[in-house]
Amino acid sequence: MGSSPSNTANTTEEKVVSNGVNHTAPIATKGLAVDSASSPFKVFDFERRVPKPDDVFIRIHYCGICHSDIHQVKNEWHTSKYPMVPGHEITGVVEQVGSNVRKFRIGDHVGVGCMVDSCLHCNSCKKNFEQHCPDIAFTYSSTELDKVTPTYGGYSNFITVKEHFVCKVPKNLPLDAAAPLLCAGITTYSPLRQHNVGKNTRMGVIGLGGLGHMAVKFGVAMGAHVTVISTSESKRDDATKLGAKAFLVSKDAEQLKGAENSFDFIIDTVSAQHDVAAMINLLAFQGVYCMVGAPPKPAEIPSFVLLFKRPIITGSLIGGMKETQEMLDFCGKHEITCEIEKIEATPEQINVAYDRTLKSDVKYRFVIDILNAFK
Amino acid sequence: MGSSPSNTANTTEEKVVSNGVNHTAPIATKGLAVDSASSPFKVFDFERRVPKPDDVFIRIHYCGICHSDIHQVKNEWHTSKYPMVPGHEITGVVEQVGSNVRKFRIGDHVGVGCMVDSCLHCNSCKKNFEQHCPDIAFTYSSTELDKVTPTYGGYSNFITVKEHFVCKVPKNLPLDAAAPLLCAGITTYSPLRQHNVGKNTRMGVIGLGGLGHMAVKFGVAMGAHVTVISTSESKRDDATKLGAKAFLVSKDAEQLKGAENSFDFIIDTVSAQHDVAAMINLLAFQGVYCMVGAPPKPAEIPSFVLLFKRPIITGSLIGGMKETQEMLDFCGKHEITCEIEKIEATPEQINVAYDRTLKSDVKYRFVIDILNAFK
Repeated sequence: MGSSPSNTANTTEEKVVSNGVNHTAPIATKGLAVDSASSPFKVFDFERRVPKPDDVFIRIHYCGICHSDIHQVKNEWHTSKYPMVPGHEITGVVEQVGSNVRKFRIGDHVGVGCMVDSCLHCNSCKKNFEQHCPDIAFTYSSTELDKVTPTYGGYSNFITVKEHFVCKVPKNLPLDAAAPLLCAGITTYSPLRQHNVGKNTRMGVIGLGGLGHMAVKFGVAMGAHVTVISTSESKRDDATKLGAKAFLVSKDAEQLKGAENSFDFIIDTVSAQHDVAAMINLLAFQGVYCMVGAPPKPAEIPSFVLLFKRPIITGSLIGGMKETQEMLDFCGKHEITCEIEKIEATPEQINVAYDRTLKSDVKYRFVIDILNAFK
Repeated sequence: MGSSPSNTANTTEEKVVSNGVNHTAPIATKGLAVDSASSPFKVFDFERRVPKPDDVFIRIHYCGICHSDIHQVKNEWHTSKYPMVPGHEITGVVEQVGSNVRKFRIGDHVGVGCMVDSCLHCNSCKKNFEQHCPDIAFTYSSTELDKVTPTYGGYSNFITVKEHFVCKVPKNLPLDAAAPLLCAGITTYSPLRQHNVGKNTRMGVIGLGGLGHMAVKFGVAMGAHVTVISTSESKRDDATKLGAKAFLVSKDAEQLKGAENSFDFIIDTVSAQHDVAAMINLLAFQGVYCMVGAPPKPAEIPSFVLLFKRPIITGSLIGGMKETQEMLDFCGKHEITCEIEKIEATPEQINVAYDRTLKSDVKYRFVIDILNAFK
């Protein structure tokens, strides 16, 4: 279980953590937490468990800021548990492994996403959709399977996670830009795979934010002909740089009219209320429309569109562990990471990042530098 | 091209038409027509074309009354063409065939549904979805492919139809109860086949009318566990008689709660406005919800249901010619026909039937006796 000589880290910062540790008592951990929906972030001291036989102990290097962190910090989904250490776009390096762990070695680059445990025997788990397990333990603002022990997320310097819920991050990917792959990445990769996006698929991506820009990258890498559909003409250049072949302004009725019936697959990444029926009109006969955002009000879908277009209207929620690993391997092969802005792990910088995220003023994801924090 | 001795008709009424004819001039035809959205039905004299090489000339025996006949007679879809001879649930017997016709012989029992021609070379036609061809010629209130010649439907004693759009009706099925198979039958059979309903599929049928009762029969014959979901407790006995194993009253919140997440496939046959979101809640993870009715207002579908259930929300419109023939063969094998009330081909009886159809006061389809009309 010592560090492997072949596991040479590819940056200075990663070398410091490649020698392994041997914790036998709970591990003192520092995080950034809020105590209530209206509290500011503060440094929070807590403990991570000693790795059990099937656990991996990880030194967190980076954690992305997902829009859902903000919803949960503010208790907008009415399920928040405090104190809350948010964060479910986690990358880091393995420092210790339990005696039964086979997939990971000390020094491995790893990622942890939105969940840290599930029952592993229900129908959803057996189908590799652990994210739909009724007993799921989310990475934070949740509890372990005992329904008592709180879970704390990735705005912290260590985490202990069951091996099944840890993914390998290919060593050619920088850990900072890879962090958002664990949520924004899998959320957009999964529906493309589930609906067989491939060479020459006429694919539309609605919204060019954290999710949308990843959908464009994946679609392009899979060989699709990608069109970005945005409310704002200002995103055209960025769409092109990301590899999109076409751009539609969704507020321009004429452009929409010209694009009717022209997409085999549309991924809708927009969480703000918008006219879904107008977007479904863009689908070709038997096309697929997949929502990954969650607008507050229901989508209004005319029945005649369902009858005459025979579309598949569906949605998708992150992805299972097997698919998340497949996504990371795909990213390694195609050298895909997120476009990020890195910030320091301070309450002040997180506040600024949250404000800018709410204004969609980020290209395209904030990532917190945890490795250099709490010193 | 003479009648075949083996084509002995199985009822007295069918014997009279088994000897064939040899029309060489347009055929005087009688129908029941309306002249405008507010006109009463009247007897209407017109001509059918002499069969071209790929045409089949049919003596119509029966024609079902579809709810959409009423919409079109009253111009509720704003596309009606007058004078209008409605009717697209047609059964009859072949009296003459064109020189290139290979599939049909004089005396064959045949059916004609909602369409009488299409381009046969577009993507939809090539995929056997002729009903989605942009150049489709509907059976009535439409024009032939020349975009000029009006089409007249099955409330008439003869029809000349291109071979491709004629189906064989198995001889073990009575032609009266088989007539609605050409619309109500294929409308419900197609989505079950497209979505692989089969042994032990947990299938829900919303609405027990002309469409719903056929969906139940098909589902039962395919081995599904069928539940009828109806606003009215009064339909329970009929559902059971048709083979349904369970019954849910859709206005009973407690019953709906108990049935959440329990269906693999739901076919929604209701054209009146109803709460689609409440019905989608009944779907199991990754279940299929297929609408075949067309309520006037859009269905409201919450995005979180799409994300957490990963359902397929879709629709279906009749079926292509290949599938319509498959459906009729399936009906022959399983001895499936519609439950009907037969009426005479008079304006008075059609008026009564329309009024009762609008009140859902029919079990389950009116069929007009054309064979004994116009004498």
